Amino acid sequence: MIYIERKERFSAAHQLYNPNWSEEQNEAVFGKCANKNFHGHNYTLSVTVKGEINPDTGFVMNLVDLKNIIKNEVIEALDHANLNHDVPFLKGKFTSTEVLAQEIWKILQPKIAEHQAELYKIRLDETLNNAVEYFGD
Amino acid sequence: MIYIERKERFSAAHQLYNPNWSEEQNEAVFGKCANKNFHGHNYTLSVTVKGEINPDTGFVMNLVDLKNIIKNEVIEALDHANLNHDVPFLKGKFTSTEVLAQEIWKILQPKIAEHQAELYKIRLDETLNNAVEYFGD
Amino acid sequence: MIYIERKERFSAAHQLYNPNWSEEQNEAVFGKCANKNFHGHNYTLSVTVKGEINPDTGFVMNLVDLKNIIKNEVIEALDHANLNHDVPFLKGKFTSTEVLAQEIWKILQPKIAEHQAELYKIRLDETLNNAVEYFGD
Amino acid sequence: MIYIERKERFSAAHQLYNPNWSEEQNEAVFGKCANKNFHGHNYTLSVTVKGEINPDTGFVMNLVDLKNIIKNEVIEALDHANLNHDVPFLKGKFTSTEVLAQEIWKILQPKIAEHQAELYKIRLDETLNNAVEYFGD
Amino acid sequence: MIYIERKERFSAAHQLYNPNWSEEQNEAVFGKCANKNFHGHNYTLSVTVKGEINPDTGFVMNLVDLKNIIKNEVIEALDHANLNHDVPFLKGKFTSTEVLAQEIWKILQPKIAEHQAELYKIRLDETLNNAVEYFGD
Amino acid sequence: MIYIERKERFSAAHQLYNPNWSEEQNEAVFGKCANKNFHGHNYTLSVTVKGEINPDTGFVMNLVDLKNIIKNEVIEALDHANLNHDVPFLKGKFTSTEVLAQEIWKILQPKIAEHQAELYKIRLDETLNNAVEYFGD
Repeated sequence: MIYIERKERFSAAHQLYNPNWSEEQNEAVFGKCANKNFHGHNYTLSVTVKGEINPDTGFVMNLVDLKNIIKNEVIEALDHANLNHDVPFLKGKFTSTEVLAQEIWKILQPKIAEHQAELYKIRLDETLNNAVEYFGD
Repeated sequence: MIYIERKERFSAAHQLYNPNWSEEQNEAVFGKCANKNFHGHNYTLSVTVKGEINPDTGFVMNLVDLKNIIKNEVIEALDHANLNHDVPFLKGKFTSTEVLAQEIWKILQPKIAEHQAELYKIRLDETLNNAVEYFGD
Repeated sequence: MIYIERKERFSAAHQLYNPNWSEEQNEAVFGKCANKNFHGHNYTLSVTVKGEINPDTGFVMNLVDLKNIIKNEVIEALDHANLNHDVPFLKGKFTSTEVLAQEIWKILQPKIAEHQAELYKIRLDETLNNAVEYFGD
Repeated sequence: MIYIERKERFSAAHQLYNPNWSEEQNEAVFGKCANKNFHGHNYTLSVTVKGEINPDTGFVMNLVDLKNIIKNEVIEALDHANLNHDVPFLKGKFTSTEVLAQEIWKILQPKIAEHQAELYKIRLDETLNNAVEYFGD
Repeated sequence: MIYIERKERFSAAHQLYNPNWSEEQNEAVFGKCANKNFHGHNYTLSVTVKGEINPDTGFVMNLVDLKNIIKNEVIEALDHANLNHDVPFLKGKFTSTEVLAQEIWKILQPKIAEHQAELYKIRLDETLNNAVEYFGD
Repeated sequence: MIYIERKERFSAAHQLYNPNWSEEQNEAVFGKCANKNFHGHNYTLSVTVKGEINPDTGFVMNLVDLKNIIKNEVIEALDHANLNHDVPFLKGKFTSTEVLAQEIWKILQPKIAEHQAELYKIRLDETLNNAVEYFGD
């Protein structure tokens, strides 16, 4: 077993808030992240795939295929978007980095499985200092 | 003459658009950056100050003072804000990195001058690949 | 289960030496790191916490709480300190990156447990090229 | 158990191709990487070793020893080399990052074992966005 | 006057040698860089353009145009290429970072001038530690 | 004219204090940096040299020569040292980044001049966020 990792980047706006809470509760929990006019980040998405090395190519999976899957399935929807309003697969969900990582997993997992490889980890860096890692359930 | 540089970071949402143009014109020029629901970035602001070394301290200017000026005068207003709606000194202005760098210069220049030092350069990195530098007029 | 990571930084001086050894033995094993006048580093501390996503917030744990724990419990003691002389929780211990990572674990583990989350990993980067990871016992 | 990591860098040329395939097949699978005049990269090699902390040194393993093993056993052969032609331990093998990571593992594993420590992971970053991790069989 | 910078990356193989010299002379001056089987790098190209801010856009120059010029005019020729053999504008020239920066300048300068902006600087990072800057003649 | 840059790194301890001042004055001005047990940093030194391209090599100056000058003349003295006690060329001087940059300039300038090239800039990064640049008098 060997693991390959591909990074892609996107820039997006979002707001953290719980619609069942008052504005005061939202501000108490989410602080500046609850700004109703939104704020934003440059996200770095790292996708790790595991598999055996194909004896005909020396690859676990062609990185061009992996790059295209990531770009077509998630970056196109997320880049220069408002995560709370513009992204079909995030509708009605929190836009915390945790939830975002899980939803990206759900989309990429079956697409990567079509290439005789297995999604192993989604890592999402939201800022220089904050990141999330998700390995599926 | 010697130059000192201090970096601070902020995360913000913005939209690029010209209010005198139609939606089509805006999209033709600004592309995805014209998204009316906003997108966002992690900005890195680098402030360079020049001056003589003070013989009592070995400093051009105390970096704690420089850090506090940057944080109090610009980061507090810009961090987790919407640059088009929340920032008094950007009202009615484009929120391109170029304009943002110039407006930050106008605010920091007199504050730094109070410390027997001279603002030399504002650099603003918007993404891993895009940046602006401004040296005043 | 999902993992969140927060990075904080500190700058410190230290010396590597074994008090039971001669100066020659210390220099033979620790080389330049045994300099009795000390040397120093900018350390990057990465703290990874695991847990379930809270359905009311979308968070494993509020990153502001995690940041405050790290800052109050370890960064305040380590930043701009001499690791061999100034830090109560390192008294009488080696100040290798390995030992430092373990001692930081001991301090942070119970504090994070108070927030319905679990400390998973301490990573400590000492230089661009050297790092340590500790996952508890 | 604790883990230490050491990074070293090398610059090399290579070509991805399968000698049993036609030029067309090679280009279809490997694209620009099949260029018969070669292309190249700055590789970053991260070697992670696990072990117990030695109570006399505070170290899992002396990083100077680890650095010397990596430099003498692999960097000297790989740096400023053509991976397809100049490196004895890669003769007749694919020079994909996956295969390269496995071959580096085979060389470093026994050398590190001589130091009462255990090789845990080889990570090889080929570009800013592409990397491989190998943990042995 | 304000300055905008755009970074693009390419991976290439090259060899440093003087065809008028003996192999011994080449090795004495260029060392491992003279390897006739080539070695390679991940280069980072930073292009800085200066100009006035356009009052209709807030831009010195549309970064999408700048990105496209860089990609079409230089990256397409240099990426995954052998700088000594595959690149028309480097034929018969040294492939040192200095010469490469000058030749990139010659190609980009007139293309950027068509956009009412002025090429100010070419910076080329060859490794983590080595870079060149060229400002024209 | 073209500019080449070489980066080298060193780790050192230091203390900021004015021996003509009381402890209170030192703490008021230098804060935690006045810690008499020292603190430390990983410094990154960037040396920029300008000159004409040598038509026989394609180089302004051989980077191996530049690297050796930097290592032999300054890194050997500064790495794993206490800047206040161990470095002959800093005796009796402040160990602020500003003064350090100037003293490195004085040492490197004549050595680089012996190679038909001219020292242009010393940049010294003390932390991720603080740096100094010096261009001589």
